[in-house]
Amino acid sequence: MRIESGLFGVVGALALTWAMNVLAADGAAKRPPTLADVVKNSKAADWHALDPANTLYLDLKAGRVVIELAPAFAPKHVANIKALVAEGYFDGLAILRVQDNYVVQWGDPDADDKTRQRPIKTAQRTLKAEFTTSSANIASFVRLPDADGYAAQTGFSGDFASARDPKLGQAWLAHCYGTVGVGRDLGVDSGGGAELYAVIGQAPRWLERNITAVGRVVQGMELLSSLPRGTAEMGFYDKPEQRVRIERVRLAADVPEGERTRLEIMRTDTPTFAALIESRRNRIDDFYKTPLGHIDVCSVPIPVRPGRAP
Amino acid sequence: MRIESGLFGVVGALALTWAMNVLAADGAAKRPPTLADVVKNSKAADWHALDPANTLYLDLKAGRVVIELAPAFAPKHVANIKALVAEGYFDGLAILRVQDNYVVQWGDPDADDKTRQRPIKTAQRTLKAEFTTSSANIASFVRLPDADGYAAQTGFSGDFASARDPKLGQAWLAHCYGTVGVGRDLGVDSGGGAELYAVIGQAPRWLERNITAVGRVVQGMELLSSLPRGTAEMGFYDKPEQRVRIERVRLAADVPEGERTRLEIMRTDTPTFAALIESRRNRIDDFYKTPLGHIDVCSVPIPVRPGRAP
Repeated sequence: MRIESGLFGVVGALALTWAMNVLAADGAAKRPPTLADVVKNSKAADWHALDPANTLYLDLKAGRVVIELAPAFAPKHVANIKALVAEGYFDGLAILRVQDNYVVQWGDPDADDKTRQRPIKTAQRTLKAEFTTSSANIASFVRLPDADGYAAQTGFSGDFASARDPKLGQAWLAHCYGTVGVGRDLGVDSGGGAELYAVIGQAPRWLERNITAVGRVVQGMELLSSLPRGTAEMGFYDKPEQRVRIERVRLAADVPEGERTRLEIMRTDTPTFAALIESRRNRIDDFYKTPLGHIDVCSVPIPVRPGRAP
Repeated sequence: MRIESGLFGVVGALALTWAMNVLAADGAAKRPPTLADVVKNSKAADWHALDPANTLYLDLKAGRVVIELAPAFAPKHVANIKALVAEGYFDGLAILRVQDNYVVQWGDPDADDKTRQRPIKTAQRTLKAEFTTSSANIASFVRLPDADGYAAQTGFSGDFASARDPKLGQAWLAHCYGTVGVGRDLGVDSGGGAELYAVIGQAPRWLERNITAVGRVVQGMELLSSLPRGTAEMGFYDKPEQRVRIERVRLAADVPEGERTRLEIMRTDTPTFAALIESRRNRIDDFYKTPLGHIDVCSVPIPVRPGRAP
């Protein structure tokens, strides 16, 4: 007995048996395309390769977490994270915190101890907050017409679920499952990218406009979400041996081509993606009987698949 | 460096350091109470003990998952699950599926094989769907005024996030993180409670009105959400040795009092809980600078704490 398949990405074979691809042969009304139909019928131009210059490989012993960065939304933080990565800052640091239905967080276990903290050479330790950016900086915004309570408008900007407020002229990343953000203390400018987190639970939309978000996990999410939860307050690991070591973090562009993880993401500015959204807004197939006529921006999967060799 | 604490429950000490409980001593405007304030200032009457007659203990080797059942929403399924539990049906069965950002599912690995499936003695294998119930059956509904795209109205019914449609006169459980539902095949009446799941990711609200929900996990969620994800399609475990064994499932009422897990849940029909909702709707403290003025029903934590001995 199986309930229907999930949300986060579609990697690998397009032979998805969980959505029945039934087209009526007898002239009866065709059912609208399911997500599996949309993916199956998509063309090469509906997909694009991840940009190696904006892709991080967070390598754990258990495998690789691939993170796509969103420089348009937080240019200084993304640049700073790249600088930290370039100086090998994260290599040998650790996953510090895993809080159920919230976040996995990683960085320097000794960050708060000035005598033991890992030095930062060329990057910055803290930066002015980039909680939002001017909408003018976001080249593309495909609006999701469905009402959202957390933002005046939500939609898709390139590979990212995003939000904006036309009155304020501001835009920001929607804080969905898999979103990567910048850890900070109470001060709004107390983060900089040396400590990062990924969302592993219900989309904490209330963090929007209160934290700098820099990207999202596009593969390897399970390597983070299945980690043991920390038993100290807020899910921190209280014993050093509990922390999962970060083997290294590299920018994909700095990795020899043959070692890169080739991935393609479905574009969000096409009729194909509009059909995908509709397949989720009104989900009708052999399993789903009652379409709800609504979808929220964090519940629209942006499919990911293995890419082709160049 | 820490980002703010999470959502799911508040168990244990009320000494929550992550929310600064600052009341201005100098006559300046007091900040509205934070969630920690609300919990700290709550009275005994703001809480109530879980009903042992509607509490399941799902015991794994790693620990206990406590599930509160919601019989008002799915009376036949809840009664059937109790019957299955009473005949020891689940004992020695297994967790079959863990799909990232979706569900953990458990039941009989041989359910689809009539020659090997575990017999069911007094309970039913399948039941007519209880995707919704008549609103008249739901004694209490404290409406959450915040707009919701998936239901005409959302709110709280006893210990449960719920939804309803006044035009249809129907009500159902909101399908949030931790919701427990009934696995089924394509047929709407193909489930019965012999296979159950719990949500471990973004609230799959699109399942509402398409599946029978029977309750929610109130403690031990991490025992499910941190399980390795299944590598077969839809997150099923493809090798038997991957499946986590269910030691046993019992109704708390059938467990000697001294062995029960005493828990209290905050009532949702009080001014205290209204203050809790507001503390999440407009989250202002030393960390949060921009209150968003909105909260969705699945993002309101219903606090749980250890109960007192009777």
